[in-house]
Amino acid sequence: MISQPLSNPNKLPPKMKVKNRSISILIIICLQYSCSNKVKQKTTQKTKPTNVVVIVMDDMGYGDLSSFGHPTINTPNIDKLANNGQKWTNFYAASSVCSPSRGALLTGRYPIRIGLAGNKERVFFPESKGGLPTEEITIAEMLKKIGYKTGIIGKWHLGHLPKFLPTNQGFDYYYGIPYSNDMDAINWSVERLLGPSNIKFWNVPLMENDSIIERPANQYTITKRYTEKAVEFIKKNKNEPFFLYLPHTMVHTPLFASEKFSKKSLRGLFGDVMSEVDWSVGRVIATLKELKLEKNTLVILTSDNGPWLMMREHGGSPGLLTNGKGTTWEGGMRVPGIFYMPGTIQPGTIQNLGATLDILPTIASFTNAKLPDDRILDGFDLSSVLKEKSSSKREHFFYYRKKELFAVRKGDYKAHFIIQNCYTDNDEKIILKKPLLFNVNIDPSEQYDHSDQHPKVLNKINTLVDNHKKTIAIKTSELDKYATKK
Amino acid sequence: MISQPLSNPNKLPPKMKVKNRSISILIIICLQYSCSNKVKQKTTQKTKPTNVVVIVMDDMGYGDLSSFGHPTINTPNIDKLANNGQKWTNFYAASSVCSPSRGALLTGRYPIRIGLAGNKERVFFPESKGGLPTEEITIAEMLKKIGYKTGIIGKWHLGHLPKFLPTNQGFDYYYGIPYSNDMDAINWSVERLLGPSNIKFWNVPLMENDSIIERPANQYTITKRYTEKAVEFIKKNKNEPFFLYLPHTMVHTPLFASEKFSKKSLRGLFGDVMSEVDWSVGRVIATLKELKLEKNTLVILTSDNGPWLMMREHGGSPGLLTNGKGTTWEGGMRVPGIFYMPGTIQPGTIQNLGATLDILPTIASFTNAKLPDDRILDGFDLSSVLKEKSSSKREHFFYYRKKELFAVRKGDYKAHFIIQNCYTDNDEKIILKKPLLFNVNIDPSEQYDHSDQHPKVLNKINTLVDNHKKTIAIKTSELDKYATKK
Repeated sequence: MISQPLSNPNKLPPKMKVKNRSISILIIICLQYSCSNKVKQKTTQKTKPTNVVVIVMDDMGYGDLSSFGHPTINTPNIDKLANNGQKWTNFYAASSVCSPSRGALLTGRYPIRIGLAGNKERVFFPESKGGLPTEEITIAEMLKKIGYKTGIIGKWHLGHLPKFLPTNQGFDYYYGIPYSNDMDAINWSVERLLGPSNIKFWNVPLMENDSIIERPANQYTITKRYTEKAVEFIKKNKNEPFFLYLPHTMVHTPLFASEKFSKKSLRGLFGDVMSEVDWSVGRVIATLKELKLEKNTLVILTSDNGPWLMMREHGGSPGLLTNGKGTTWEGGMRVPGIFYMPGTIQPGTIQNLGATLDILPTIASFTNAKLPDDRILDGFDLSSVLKEKSSSKREHFFYYRKKELFAVRKGDYKAHFIIQNCYTDNDEKIILKKPLLFNVNIDPSEQYDHSDQHPKVLNKINTLVDNHKKTIAIKTSELDKYATKK
Repeated sequence: MISQPLSNPNKLPPKMKVKNRSISILIIICLQYSCSNKVKQKTTQKTKPTNVVVIVMDDMGYGDLSSFGHPTINTPNIDKLANNGQKWTNFYAASSVCSPSRGALLTGRYPIRIGLAGNKERVFFPESKGGLPTEEITIAEMLKKIGYKTGIIGKWHLGHLPKFLPTNQGFDYYYGIPYSNDMDAINWSVERLLGPSNIKFWNVPLMENDSIIERPANQYTITKRYTEKAVEFIKKNKNEPFFLYLPHTMVHTPLFASEKFSKKSLRGLFGDVMSEVDWSVGRVIATLKELKLEKNTLVILTSDNGPWLMMREHGGSPGLLTNGKGTTWEGGMRVPGIFYMPGTIQPGTIQNLGATLDILPTIASFTNAKLPDDRILDGFDLSSVLKEKSSSKREHFFYYRKKELFAVRKGDYKAHFIIQNCYTDNDEKIILKKPLLFNVNIDPSEQYDHSDQHPKVLNKINTLVDNHKKTIAIKTSELDKYATKK
C-alpha cells in the first residue's frame, strides 16, 4: 500500500505504516497543504474572470503599423502585441465608415440589421436625432449582466441624444467625444483638414457621462487624457472584472498630437499621432502588467475602417490593399486585427477570416457571458483559433455600403457586384452586369479578375447571398433621422 | 598593499606578505591562469574573423515578406532575422533590373561606372558577349586578398563567356545558373510565364565552376539544391573565414517550387516559392548555429529589384510603394534590407537611407579588408548604424535607368526628372519640364507633389546632381555587346 506515489495524496492509504510517526505526520500535513493549496489555486484560476480591453483606432489603415509594413511609422507597443499575440491579416471592419462599423462591433450584427444603414446618410452628424437602437445588446450590456464594470473612453458616434449615450447602452462610465472630431466645424472644408491643426476650427464637445465638460475639446491632449482615464479606470476596477472600450479619437483628421510627440516622426503629423496612440497602448499594457492583470485580460486592437485617403498626407495607408475608407475595396474594410492575452492566446500570424463582428461572441466565450439568443448574430466565436490555432469558423464576409450589398468574400474569393470608388457619394456607382471575382489571398490588391475562370465559385457566392438576404429585415434607418442639417 | 583588489592581477604588488605561502601561490597561479586565459580569449575573439553571407532574392518586392506586411506569404525564418537583426525600411537596390543591380552590389559602384548601363540593353542575354569588366573589384576579390574562401551559389547574370564567369571574378566556387531563368526560352512569351510551370520551356544551363552540368536546369529542385550546396560550402569552410554569396534563382518567373512546398501557400505558386526560399534561409542560419558560427557571421538579405508586375499573380508586390521592377518609382528600387549578426548588430528597425551599394564598404569594415582606393566608390560603410544605431552616412541615392539619371533622393525628398512607368522600354519616356518632388518618408506611395512648396529642396538636389555628374565618366556599355540577338 505504501508504494502508492506520494505525489498523489488523494490515494494515500487510510492507515500508513511508517517508522517515524512525526515524519509521517509532517509529510501528510505538507501534502494536504500543498494539495488544498493547489485545489484552491486551480479554483481561483478557474474562477478568476477575464477582463476585456477593446482598443479601436479611428481611420487607421491596414498599412499604418510597423508590424503591418509601414516604413516610417513607429508602433513598437502595438507591434509587441502583434508579435506576442495573434496578428490577423484577413480581418474586417463591418463597415467602411464610422457609426455603422462601431455599432456592428458592439453588437456582433451587420449594420443593416441594427438601423445603421441609411438611404441617405452613412454616419451620425451633430444634427442627427437617431442612435444605436436601445433594444440592441452591446458588449457592455452583455458583460454588465454578469457583473462586469464597464467603461468607454473615447469616441462614441452612435447617437448623442441623451437616450443614446453610452450610459444608456451598458456603460457605467463614459469619457470622450460623442461624434467625429471634424464635426461641429466652424466652416468645414477639406483644405482646413489638410492644413495645420487648430482646435478653434472644431467645436466638438468632450463629455463625461451625460455632461459636456469641455467645448471645444482640447484635441492636442485628448490622447493623453484618454490614456490617463483608461489607466484610472483599470486601477479603480482592478479587483472587479471589467470591460474597457477605448475607441481613440485619433488618427481621424483633424490630427492633433501632444507636445511630447509633436514633430518627431519621419511620417509627419500622421506619424506623430500614430506614435502617441501607440504610446497609449503601451501605457495600458504596462498598467495591466503592474497590477498583475496581464494574463487574465483579453486585449483586442483594431480600426473602425480603412484610411481616409481624401486627407492626403493627413490620412493613413491601406498598405498593399486597394482604396480606403468609405469603399468596399479591401483598403476600405480590411484592418489590422490583434488579439493579446499571454499564456492563453497562442502567438502567431493568422490568415483565417475574421471580423469586428466576431468580437462580441469571442468575448462571450472568454467571459462565459450569455450570448443574446433572441436575434440573429453575424459574429463567430474566434476563441478556438485564439487558444488552439484551429480554423476560423468565419468563412464569409458581406461588404455593405449603406443598404446595398456591394461585395461578398467567401474563402479565398471576393465577388464585387457594385463598385463605387470614392469615399463621397458624389462618385459614380456602377452596378456590374457581371461581377468581378478576385482571389484576394493570391491577389490582395484586387487587380486580376477571374470571373471567367471560376463560374462555380460565383454560383456558390450567389447562393450564399440569396440565403443571407432571406435573413435580412431592413430596419428604419437611424442615420437618416435628423433635425435641420447644416 | 595587500588591499589591492585581487581581481586586478596586473596591479598585484611584486612582494606579497601573506600568512600561508602555498595559498598565495595557488591564488597567484589561478589569477595568472585566469588572466592569460582571458587575454587569450580576448585575442581569439578579436582575431576570429567575420564570415559573410549575402543572400539576394530575385524580383522579390518590398511587400513580399510577412515582416514587411504581406498578409498571406509566410516567411518566418527571414522574419526572425528582421526581428532579431536590423530591418531597413529605406533600403535601395542600385538598379531596377538584374545585371546592373548585381554588378553594383558586388562592386559598391553605380552601374553607370562599371559598364552596366546600356544604350539599348538593360541586362545580359544568352547572346551577350559582355560582362562585368574584370578590372572591377568584387566583394569576393576584396575578401580573397585577405584569405577568405569565396563561393557563389545561385544566379550570376554578369556575363557568361569564360572570362566573365564568377571563377574569374574572385569566387573559388560557383554553382548556379549564368543568367535569368526565363532566358534561353523555347518560344518566350508572357503567357507562358503566367501559365503552369514546365521546365521544358526553358533551356537555362546549370553550371558548376566553368562547366555546364545540367541543361535545362531542373528548376523544381533548384532552391533545394542551392541550399544543400550552401550548407556544404559552409561546413567545408567552417575553419576558414568565408564569403558565401547566395543569389537565389527564385522568386523570378518562371516560378518553381519543390514538391514539399508545392500548393501549400494561400498566396498561390508565388507564395509556395517564397516559403521555399524562406526555408532555405532557415537552413543556412541553422547550419551557422550548429557550427557555432552564428555570432561571427554577418548575414545580409535583400532583393535585386522590385517585383515584376507584368507577371501578374506570378510576380511579387511592392507593398504600399508605387510601381515595380524596371522603373525608378519606389516600387522598382526600394527593397527589404536585413542585417543579422547576433551580439554585434543591434536589433531594430532602421529608417535611415541605405543601398546595396553599401554592402561592399560595410563588409570591408566588418572584415578589415582593404577597400579599393584607386576608384570612386558609391557605397557607404553602414557598420556604425549596425553596431551602434548611429545615423547612416548615406544621405542620397541616385535612380538611374540605363544611362539616364531619372530621379534623386536626398534625405526625406525624392525628385523625379524623367518618368517611364513600365518595365518595357516601349512605354513612353517623359522628360519632365519641372521635376516632381515627393517627401517619400511622409508619402512613400509618391502621390503628392510638393515641388511648388519646396523650391529650395529642389535647388539643393540640383546642386547634388551637378556634383555627381562631374564624377561620372561613362564607360562603354558591356550590355550592348552581343552576337546575333534572337
